[in-house]
Amino acid sequence: MERGNIQSAIDEIGKVCGHTTTDPAELLLYSFDSAKIKHKPDCVVFPESTEEVSEIVKICARRRIPVTARGAGTGCIGGAVPVEGGAALVLTKMNRIIAFNPDGLYVEVEPGIVNAELSGFLEKRGFFYPPDPASLKSSTIGGNVATGAGGPSAVKYGVTGDYVMGLTVVLADGSVLDTGIKTDKGVVGYDLKKLFVGSEGTLGIITKIRLKILPKPEAVVTATAVFPERKDAVSAVIAILHKGIRPRTLEYIDRTAIRCVEGYLKAGLPVNAGAILLMETDGKTADAEKEMDDIREVCLAGGAESLIIAENREEAEAQWKTRRSISASLNRLRPTKINEDVTVPRNRIAELMERTAEMSERTGLPIVNFGHAGDGNIHVNVMTDANDAEEYELALKTVGEILDLTLALDGTLSGEHGIGITKKPYIAREIGATGVKISKAIKKALDPDNILNPGKIFP
Amino acid sequence: MERGNIQSAIDEIGKVCGHTTTDPAELLLYSFDSAKIKHKPDCVVFPESTEEVSEIVKICARRRIPVTARGAGTGCIGGAVPVEGGAALVLTKMNRIIAFNPDGLYVEVEPGIVNAELSGFLEKRGFFYPPDPASLKSSTIGGNVATGAGGPSAVKYGVTGDYVMGLTVVLADGSVLDTGIKTDKGVVGYDLKKLFVGSEGTLGIITKIRLKILPKPEAVVTATAVFPERKDAVSAVIAILHKGIRPRTLEYIDRTAIRCVEGYLKAGLPVNAGAILLMETDGKTADAEKEMDDIREVCLAGGAESLIIAENREEAEAQWKTRRSISASLNRLRPTKINEDVTVPRNRIAELMERTAEMSERTGLPIVNFGHAGDGNIHVNVMTDANDAEEYELALKTVGEILDLTLALDGTLSGEHGIGITKKPYIAREIGATGVKISKAIKKALDPDNILNPGKIFP
Repeated sequence: MERGNIQSAIDEIGKVCGHTTTDPAELLLYSFDSAKIKHKPDCVVFPESTEEVSEIVKICARRRIPVTARGAGTGCIGGAVPVEGGAALVLTKMNRIIAFNPDGLYVEVEPGIVNAELSGFLEKRGFFYPPDPASLKSSTIGGNVATGAGGPSAVKYGVTGDYVMGLTVVLADGSVLDTGIKTDKGVVGYDLKKLFVGSEGTLGIITKIRLKILPKPEAVVTATAVFPERKDAVSAVIAILHKGIRPRTLEYIDRTAIRCVEGYLKAGLPVNAGAILLMETDGKTADAEKEMDDIREVCLAGGAESLIIAENREEAEAQWKTRRSISASLNRLRPTKINEDVTVPRNRIAELMERTAEMSERTGLPIVNFGHAGDGNIHVNVMTDANDAEEYELALKTVGEILDLTLALDGTLSGEHGIGITKKPYIAREIGATGVKISKAIKKALDPDNILNPGKIFP
Repeated sequence: MERGNIQSAIDEIGKVCGHTTTDPAELLLYSFDSAKIKHKPDCVVFPESTEEVSEIVKICARRRIPVTARGAGTGCIGGAVPVEGGAALVLTKMNRIIAFNPDGLYVEVEPGIVNAELSGFLEKRGFFYPPDPASLKSSTIGGNVATGAGGPSAVKYGVTGDYVMGLTVVLADGSVLDTGIKTDKGVVGYDLKKLFVGSEGTLGIITKIRLKILPKPEAVVTATAVFPERKDAVSAVIAILHKGIRPRTLEYIDRTAIRCVEGYLKAGLPVNAGAILLMETDGKTADAEKEMDDIREVCLAGGAESLIIAENREEAEAQWKTRRSISASLNRLRPTKINEDVTVPRNRIAELMERTAEMSERTGLPIVNFGHAGDGNIHVNVMTDANDAEEYELALKTVGEILDLTLALDGTLSGEHGIGITKKPYIAREIGATGVKISKAIKKALDPDNILNPGKIFP
């Protein structure tokens, strides 16, 4: 599809939105996200309302010029990179809480609000928004919705999409769609809101979000269990869930990760353990404590050498520090980290671990596994050096093998990051030719000129 | 769109599927569902595999002949009625459990399996499939998915769509789509499975379903609270949920319903109560008991005159009998019941009750309210006589007022039944012109000749 005149579009956008720029520094700043793939937009726009977004999209639609929306740029798969140029729509100025409805148990927010800001607002008022991606201190709710973000608490509380009750979306022709409900359930026509969740800005630009909220649990109990054998840690995950226990988090950290963190933190971590599980229970104080006692029983019966319950907030923070320091500590192994957030059925985690250990041994590349074992979402990190062409090629080949293995284990290529640019070559392996065809038909129906975040998801 | 030759299609279908009939008795039998609106198909087909469904759809697609899939026909909105004739595809022979994966916490079933059969199978093995529509003893899982069915346990466990991990769907051209995951989460491309949930057979014919299952709770505690004042019962619902208590069910029954059931059962029900709440908690025995104690405290502090906890299964059954007998007992009031499953935010339930009471007083038509108060899904029943033309017209007008009231209260027209034929005239009031336009664009993209269950959902 031939694109129209970009300069006249920029001029017209400037009249709608005061904060429109072609400053080269800004173009560079908004040319990448956490995937570090770069492509500059032709202009960067900071709209402040649904109406402005609608006008901007109309201007671009008339000229078939690409519009790529973005929040904080913490996405891991290049989803926010304007690979065909055009307008980068930065939504961080649209960061208000529009409505707080405690009786209806929902909030309405603009897409640019940072996850942790919303969580903080709610906590002060006795409420709770569970989805907690690792990026929560900087990532925006709009980005969380557009990618379908998860987090450690997904094992109990589900992912972002489970909290989306309604959306306001600017469509490819600039028209505005209000979709969704203010109730817990509803079956009136197709579930359009779910179609936009995880669609990475390719079907519309989200300008308002209604999110379900929960009453804040009275207590959170945190504990770390140390397993001499990796496979026992994995078996314990399944045993805990089969007992009907519903931990708030159930995180797995393998020996390589423990050793990296210990080298970094010098915290006296159990460097000879096969794996550790970091777990939380929540609810009424007595219930959360009882549930952690049940977990302790399962873990000790299942080969754990210890389970230490944090006695206070400081001790809990210290336990979490191990988990949170993994990513930063990994560069002690190799300068480049290729992080795949593959997800397998819980009963296949052990196989995933074994087979990636074999790959590591065979290739000599360190492969570090950690993440949300409770829902099978393991972050498999292949460590390499992007400046060593031969090794990097081997690393990419190994990543391909890991993705094939994941599918062979009935898994999915991405639990919470999405497809964007980086996983585009692999999507058909998972969803098949018919899945791609149907998805493209929907894209074509909603965005016939392919102006919304073109070049993403589909090969 | 002009349709092709039906007789040649029937001949060809007969070669693919042995059980194909044009027997007038069968055509009549499959001409309606629980909405009692009738339109005969041209033939009735009982396929036994995805391949057969695919072949049948291909035969119809070549002639642009309608295909309307159905299960047990328990739907309340005419969704299974073949209003444009063509082939009625009865999926009740496809009723196998294909896979039971306790470690992966999922089952795979064919669409024709009855909800209660699946539940029974799982319970015997210590597992649990929560969605429990009132029709569960006869309705099929395929129909539950196609309508997005709910049930009393939705307040804690969510609705059918929350359990759908994957689907096999025969598309409008007869091609077969496998979509979804075998894991708890995944964000690989558009969430196609969610698009088919609640799409009432208009986008594809579901031939295989993968459902999430849970470990069966150790105990269920049942109790009934009696409130002299209706408004106190409604306030207690909100208070319970705000305490962070998560009842498994939280059902509301108003005075008119209590009196009807008492006239029918002679069970000594509290006929002077404003309303009663029927509630369950579940989980580990001690936890479920503790949670019901917490509920008792909230109810008694909030104006309940009593809360009786069932001491055993028989007492629990007796309490549920009241709830389950409402529909049958209502014909004591009037021969015709118009049942709307509107849903409002919980904090607007009281207004819905008050305003429908006013309507009842003004029109002289009994209006009976009961249902899933925990998620705001109230079954509002306007009682009338369809043979009294004048009164029936008044009743339909009143239903229109109730739907308008529901939207004014930020509610949705249907919590769990769907749109089908009966609510088609109202859908644009809720989802708006843009919502209808986008939904139709998706329908057109997936079913360009409009052969899949035509005449439904959209005006």
